[in-house]
Amino acid sequence: MSGVVNLRTTLEQIPEPWVPAIVGELNGQYVKLGKARDSYVWHHHELEDELFLIVQGELHIHLKDEAGAESVVTVGEGEFYIVPRGVEHKPVARDGEAHFLLFEPKSTRNTGNVDHAYTIEPGDLECL
Amino acid sequence: MSGVVNLRTTLEQIPEPWVPAIVGELNGQYVKLGKARDSYVWHHHELEDELFLIVQGELHIHLKDEAGAESVVTVGEGEFYIVPRGVEHKPVARDGEAHFLLFEPKSTRNTGNVDHAYTIEPGDLECL
Repeated sequence: MSGVVNLRTTLEQIPEPWVPAIVGELNGQYVKLGKARDSYVWHHHELEDELFLIVQGELHIHLKDEAGAESVVTVGEGEFYIVPRGVEHKPVARDGEAHFLLFEPKSTRNTGNVDHAYTIEPGDLECL
Repeated sequence: MSGVVNLRTTLEQIPEPWVPAIVGELNGQYVKLGKARDSYVWHHHELEDELFLIVQGELHIHLKDEAGAESVVTVGEGEFYIVPRGVEHKPVARDGEAHFLLFEPKSTRNTGNVDHAYTIEPGDLECL
């Protein structure tokens, strides 16, 4: 992981949605690339903020405030959004896939506080 | 800084090269956007790895190994490169400007160990 990483060509190596791969590491953080399709699962990360940078397509990040009220943030190609720690969120790609870069601490678990079929423990993520 | 950030439109607000602005904060790290033109100054960051993601143009990152031998890594649009802590480096944009995103700890000083006309203390960076 010490060379130049091309986002689009590396994303081509990711076979399925919601299985991000590690493509960089710095300062205790991972850079990951992933694909979104349809709806993910509601979850939050207790101690970690999470950055989504969209490489291709459009990601709709559903959010719940402390009272449980929902809102949606739409993040397009070349845009990023940071989900603050503790905030319930559910990423959704509506029209085909959205391809994204994640920047988050190495300890971050993909489904946060929730156990789900999508759960991959941080130590089990593939490196590309 | 709690909304969606569009990389290209936010870069339009940065008036001059080598004066990055803070556009996001997460987990003790800053996301910055900046412009490169011509040659920067040789420097290193003792304790901090630094990620350059190129939004537009091409950035040539000159590197020195421990023996002082030089090499150059060319990072194009949609690509990133991580300069490991301690490594002497000098970013250069040859043909016009290169626009980039930086991920690095909040403590990172732009010219690292070197005092230079380009030096901006971390607390003096502008937020967009």
